[in-house]
Amino acid sequence: MDPASTLALFRQMKKQLGQLDAWFDAAKAAGTAKSFDPNVLLQARLAPDQFPLARQIQIACDTAKLAASRLTGIEVPSQPDTETTFDELRTRVHSVVAILGGLEVAHFEGAADRSITQPRWEGKTLSGADYLVEHALPNFYFHLAHVYAILRHNGVGLGKRDYLGALSFRAP
Amino acid sequence: MDPASTLALFRQMKKQLGQLDAWFDAAKAAGTAKSFDPNVLLQARLAPDQFPLARQIQIACDTAKLAASRLTGIEVPSQPDTETTFDELRTRVHSVVAILGGLEVAHFEGAADRSITQPRWEGKTLSGADYLVEHALPNFYFHLAHVYAILRHNGVGLGKRDYLGALSFRAP
Repeated sequence: MDPASTLALFRQMKKQLGQLDAWFDAAKAAGTAKSFDPNVLLQARLAPDQFPLARQIQIACDTAKLAASRLTGIEVPSQPDTETTFDELRTRVHSVVAILGGLEVAHFEGAADRSITQPRWEGKTLSGADYLVEHALPNFYFHLAHVYAILRHNGVGLGKRDYLGALSFRAP
Repeated sequence: MDPASTLALFRQMKKQLGQLDAWFDAAKAAGTAKSFDPNVLLQARLAPDQFPLARQIQIACDTAKLAASRLTGIEVPSQPDTETTFDELRTRVHSVVAILGGLEVAHFEGAADRSITQPRWEGKTLSGADYLVEHALPNFYFHLAHVYAILRHNGVGLGKRDYLGALSFRAP
């Protein structure tokens, strides 16, 4: 995984997190239309032993943020999982979007060969390239898709375009 | 997106599809434990205007298969969406895993600059690199995560390890 390719994948994570603004707006609109507090959705979950919506959003943010930090060495703020409203979560999402937006190709020089670990791996390590492809990206999309699925399951109006966002179409 | 990085992302899609064997086994085990035909799960959906499980599996397969074809020029078989059982879907998944398993770095030479289109884009095109990062990968993981979420929502016993599979840990 070369530096430019790695940056492209992070730029995409930034874009995907940017889509959450529209999802949160749709959640608020659903609450307004049906006269409920949209923030109750943040406790919704698809299975009793899965995380609720708020935690899915927090993990999607952390997965991208920590991957950026581990692969580049940049310091990122720790963010306690205390949000209870979409507005608070929007602030958190925006902070991660800003971190990802500051990444350049040069940050990822040598990233593929970095030795990545985390406490739950009990001393085992992944190469930076394997960590990105086998762990960070699949986890990021897992939690992002669960955010989407929980909202859709609760009647929030979203479509595939809200998921993908605008594509970089070329002039014909 | 250089050829080696692109191959790594396809190898990961192959790995993720390989995890479906365990998911399907878990679905069957849930049916046996609760005395229901596991194939009824294939009609389950999280929202009335979302695709059911069978279609989510088919789309995950097609997203990976068509991305491989569009980025390399290799021909891939068209597969009608006629499966009604996990066993039939397993055959389809295995066929796509085999296609992805045959890909080598050389197949992706020039892939990043290919001009990619599909009928619904009405003549617009994406570069191969943008198509992979902005469209194929997010869609692949979207449908894969929905497969997982639908199973979990219906009480099938799966965990994050079933999702990620074995990681390429390095010797200490």
